Amino acid sequence: MDEFKITAQRYGKRKVRVLRVERLSDGTHKIHEVDVAVFLDGDVLPAYYGNDNSGVVATDTIKNTIQALAQKHLGDVIEEFALTLGDHFLAKYPHMTRAVVEVASRTWDRYIRPDGSAHPHTFLGGSTTPITKVDMTRSSVKVESGIRDLLLLKSTGSGWAGYPRDEYTTLPETTDRILSTQVEGNWTFANRSVDFGKANRAILAALLNTFAETYSPSVQNTLYSSAKAALEAVADVVEISFALPNKHYLLVNLSPFGLQNNSEIFLPTDEPHGQIEARISRSA
Amino acid sequence: MDEFKITAQRYGKRKVRVLRVERLSDGTHKIHEVDVAVFLDGDVLPAYYGNDNSGVVATDTIKNTIQALAQKHLGDVIEEFALTLGDHFLAKYPHMTRAVVEVASRTWDRYIRPDGSAHPHTFLGGSTTPITKVDMTRSSVKVESGIRDLLLLKSTGSGWAGYPRDEYTTLPETTDRILSTQVEGNWTFANRSVDFGKANRAILAALLNTFAETYSPSVQNTLYSSAKAALEAVADVVEISFALPNKHYLLVNLSPFGLQNNSEIFLPTDEPHGQIEARISRSA
Amino acid sequence: MDEFKITAQRYGKRKVRVLRVERLSDGTHKIHEVDVAVFLDGDVLPAYYGNDNSGVVATDTIKNTIQALAQKHLGDVIEEFALTLGDHFLAKYPHMTRAVVEVASRTWDRYIRPDGSAHPHTFLGGSTTPITKVDMTRSSVKVESGIRDLLLLKSTGSGWAGYPRDEYTTLPETTDRILSTQVEGNWTFANRSVDFGKANRAILAALLNTFAETYSPSVQNTLYSSAKAALEAVADVVEISFALPNKHYLLVNLSPFGLQNNSEIFLPTDEPHGQIEARISRSA
Amino acid sequence: MDEFKITAQRYGKRKVRVLRVERLSDGTHKIHEVDVAVFLDGDVLPAYYGNDNSGVVATDTIKNTIQALAQKHLGDVIEEFALTLGDHFLAKYPHMTRAVVEVASRTWDRYIRPDGSAHPHTFLGGSTTPITKVDMTRSSVKVESGIRDLLLLKSTGSGWAGYPRDEYTTLPETTDRILSTQVEGNWTFANRSVDFGKANRAILAALLNTFAETYSPSVQNTLYSSAKAALEAVADVVEISFALPNKHYLLVNLSPFGLQNNSEIFLPTDEPHGQIEARISRSA
Repeated sequence: MDEFKITAQRYGKRKVRVLRVERLSDGTHKIHEVDVAVFLDGDVLPAYYGNDNSGVVATDTIKNTIQALAQKHLGDVIEEFALTLGDHFLAKYPHMTRAVVEVASRTWDRYIRPDGSAHPHTFLGGSTTPITKVDMTRSSVKVESGIRDLLLLKSTGSGWAGYPRDEYTTLPETTDRILSTQVEGNWTFANRSVDFGKANRAILAALLNTFAETYSPSVQNTLYSSAKAALEAVADVVEISFALPNKHYLLVNLSPFGLQNNSEIFLPTDEPHGQIEARISRSA
Repeated sequence: MDEFKITAQRYGKRKVRVLRVERLSDGTHKIHEVDVAVFLDGDVLPAYYGNDNSGVVATDTIKNTIQALAQKHLGDVIEEFALTLGDHFLAKYPHMTRAVVEVASRTWDRYIRPDGSAHPHTFLGGSTTPITKVDMTRSSVKVESGIRDLLLLKSTGSGWAGYPRDEYTTLPETTDRILSTQVEGNWTFANRSVDFGKANRAILAALLNTFAETYSPSVQNTLYSSAKAALEAVADVVEISFALPNKHYLLVNLSPFGLQNNSEIFLPTDEPHGQIEARISRSA
Repeated sequence: MDEFKITAQRYGKRKVRVLRVERLSDGTHKIHEVDVAVFLDGDVLPAYYGNDNSGVVATDTIKNTIQALAQKHLGDVIEEFALTLGDHFLAKYPHMTRAVVEVASRTWDRYIRPDGSAHPHTFLGGSTTPITKVDMTRSSVKVESGIRDLLLLKSTGSGWAGYPRDEYTTLPETTDRILSTQVEGNWTFANRSVDFGKANRAILAALLNTFAETYSPSVQNTLYSSAKAALEAVADVVEISFALPNKHYLLVNLSPFGLQNNSEIFLPTDEPHGQIEARISRSA
Repeated sequence: MDEFKITAQRYGKRKVRVLRVERLSDGTHKIHEVDVAVFLDGDVLPAYYGNDNSGVVATDTIKNTIQALAQKHLGDVIEEFALTLGDHFLAKYPHMTRAVVEVASRTWDRYIRPDGSAHPHTFLGGSTTPITKVDMTRSSVKVESGIRDLLLLKSTGSGWAGYPRDEYTTLPETTDRILSTQVEGNWTFANRSVDFGKANRAILAALLNTFAETYSPSVQNTLYSSAKAALEAVADVVEISFALPNKHYLLVNLSPFGLQNNSEIFLPTDEPHGQIEARISRSA
């Protein structure tokens, strides 16, 4: 044994992309496009300490497995596909003790014709990214789903006041500002026997409803209220985390040009940005 | 005079971002968010050849002008805002001979509540980017509009066959493949007195309808047919250009795993990609 | 008390960029450009549960503080600046219990004239990004530094063999391949009284030397050997983590064109990629 | 004939990546990594107007050709490889009238050991991107080379004054500011019989020397002076274009915090940015 030791490892394949065309009996197609990562852990340390690779399933094999299993198992619910992949690797390789599977879904919206009918096989790229992460051992499984790339803005109904002032404080208080964020949300399910699709839709609806309909005294409060509404809506969810950038829209000073700016003209900015992150759980 | 000469120049400000909140009388808000670039040309060469900056309107001034004029002029039609900016700089500075104004619009879709009603001031980020470019002198004006970030896919109704074969050709012919592209479209208007909003919507509808409803024997033919449909739909458009990447979805070989792949499992790829570009005009 | 509770939070400001010009007495300039994030935790939950913001230092104030303290404290060693910022917020706000400060450095290399002399105030953008993260409470401090954007390639001296084969394995074994990675490295210091600059240089040298001079039977082994060399070189470092993508260069099959490819022509790829991650500590 | 006509087209393959390992007789390796695009034009319009693809060399064939010819022809000088590719397609396909080949080079710097010796087969990723574009017909050839991703900064020796002031002007004049840009340079060679490598090195040296050693009264003047120096240095170059973003570093107002800012603390910004573009030719 060495004077140094490996205290954690994981390895695998990232950015394995797959699209499955699902042909329905009525001639309509459904498409499922995902970007998958699989990480494995187990009895693989000899490959690190020396040159014994006999425990290390090649990441190329991991890629092939994802593509092959997609044919039968990739469908509407990315959580189910992730669970299938995790089950496969733990069943196949007794020396592996843990599998982490991450799936990000590229959303494709069905093209709606001018007459309102849905086209059977034409799709437009969507703008949000549902994700899931399955972390499993032989005795446990954690399913965490979430959303990326959800961009929200409200042009009123938001303020920021009552915060501490010190010698570096220059920001004025306001009860009417623009609030905009790009939601990074994650929620943990109680177990693997959940109607994931239904749950995800309910959580998203709770988030949007809270953002739209409630006055925001702070990003913090909007974050908590959204998570609370989602936890109330979906009993199968144990906890919710949000990471919300505060994408500032700065009021432009037009007075040098003899103009008043009554909360009308703003400078959208990406940096710097506030960042508010919290995890909300059910009380014991 | 020098032994070297400047044969072309333009200068200006890029990535000037502005959002305008338009407050309607019924309490509803409209928002207009744009990313603007303005380039100027004229009697500015002394700044290049020496240190006489007396003709060079500071790009900081250009930025301020964009923000100030947005208050009154930034609305639903980005072409009108671009024309206003171009008019301003040529009117203000007699020594300037040309103004190029580029506007890209960030689309925000109004949040639709579960009951189907539209929220008055909450918006979700959209997924396409309408653009316009106004190129004007005192005696001419060219208005070119277009679209970016429009991602399309059809899971059947596309083929590729009959092409030349040489010693470097390995691709098999097919009459059923996935066709996917990210449309970069530009169209030139006959003059500045056009209902730009209406025209842009008609062009987009023609493009989508052609892509969805017509068999594609090649990206080339789909490009031409889409442009033709758009030119037929909008008399005010003189010519249309499309640059269409062919975002290949490669059929995965599952036979090493004892599986057949009946056009079901594909590998989405970004590189390399085919690239098809053409400009279509009305015949004289 | 609610039926839901916040079990973790942090908030702050991200992407606060600062450049300091340091004027030396001989007329030479040094420049220090950083991208800073500061996150705070403490008695701030009332802002989440309701509208009491009295504990929430505005993120705008955080930004101002970073800029103001940069004047005196931003220098060659980003770890020292991060520690100063963390100390400030904990000293200033008794109700805050934890400060996390992240600093990424944009490297600028001094321009070397054709005669070999260093220019006093002209710089070229470098290609790697040193980072640090200070995580402190009133009773503890953890300083973790690292590197991003370090791109390495060796065109021989690397192989991959002896791995398990199953029904999804198609990859052939090799003892001569290209190995390329983009190093994401992090190392934890034993305390805050370290010559951080010297330590970072020694770690980087150990990493590069190992990568270059040792045959790689796997990314895993190269990762471990590099970390081992770095831990041997710097006694002040407690543990090292590396996350190494295996950026595959695929041998191109030229046989359809009547050509042999003796490990000469490769297809560089970004996706999918292997990903190898491990943490190495000193044995107790 | 249709009532619409195609007035311009080009098609081809983009992002064809290749790395060649060149094995020298002393055991040292050289590596050449490029990203190639090839566009073709000629008698291909029937594929647009209908479904006759007999003139359209498949873009997959184009990719194969690039990879196959790389084995013999990809070396130190990317211009030579681009010319070889252009020659090939025009020689092979009589119905093609024009070939455009674009090559971007990923720079890899040889690893220098602590003892100063160069490692035979280990490389670090560089930070600039040399490019070339060959545009040829059977009777003409234009070779244009250039540089991307060259990031420069001088912390003094730059000013901006004497510009027009109008009602939208708020910027103060200065004779001491930071000047930073990311050079996009292109230069056109007189013919194809040039020592391209030597010429490119001389142009780059002229640019760097001018930027570093000359006071800049404007980006415009620095652009012209750099181009002039390059044209003077390399007789084989006909004209040079630069597109220089003015990446503003804004002086931070520290006075609210009781601090003076003597051109020491700056806010680096990416947007908005000035943009200065010009083409300089030899006078007839």
